[in-house]
Amino acid sequence: MSKEYPTVKAKVHITLKSGVLDPQGKAIANALAHLGFDGLGEVRQGKVIEIELAETDPAKARDSVDAMCRKLLANTVIENYAIEIA
Amino acid sequence: MSKEYPTVKAKVHITLKSGVLDPQGKAIANALAHLGFDGLGEVRQGKVIEIELAETDPAKARDSVDAMCRKLLANTVIENYAIEIA
Repeated sequence: MSKEYPTVKAKVHITLKSGVLDPQGKAIANALAHLGFDGLGEVRQGKVIEIELAETDPAKARDSVDAMCRKLLANTVIENYAIEIA
Repeated sequence: MSKEYPTVKAKVHITLKSGVLDPQGKAIANALAHLGFDGLGEVRQGKVIEIELAETDPAKARDSVDAMCRKLLANTVIENYAIEIA
């Protein structure tokens, strides 16, 4: 992709906190078992959100994405998030 | 977590292929803009699936997870997947 302005790409990994039930992961584990895959332990599903930001300073970008996580992206009661700036 | 048997933890990153419309990402971008975050470029949402496998050989684990992706986890028409074995 051509870029007309300087951008930072942020990746936010959102996962359920350990101890929080993950019915989606459970459903995947069951489906995999039905398909004949065995030796499966726990299966958990999380989200990744990739955000392009018009920001040159990685520290500022991280702060901004952190605010996005707290305000919208992650439910911090039951979810952890990790931010990766590329 | 205590482990009674040897396990490998696999992480599967599933993302929409570029060019495939991502309405969920679009919705997140709009919501962030409404919250006052500006300078946003494209926002895309993907999935991460973490799978515990009772397998000691990383190569075999990768093959097994690759089969899971092709059979169930990823829709390879519109999605890319990447496997990470830890």
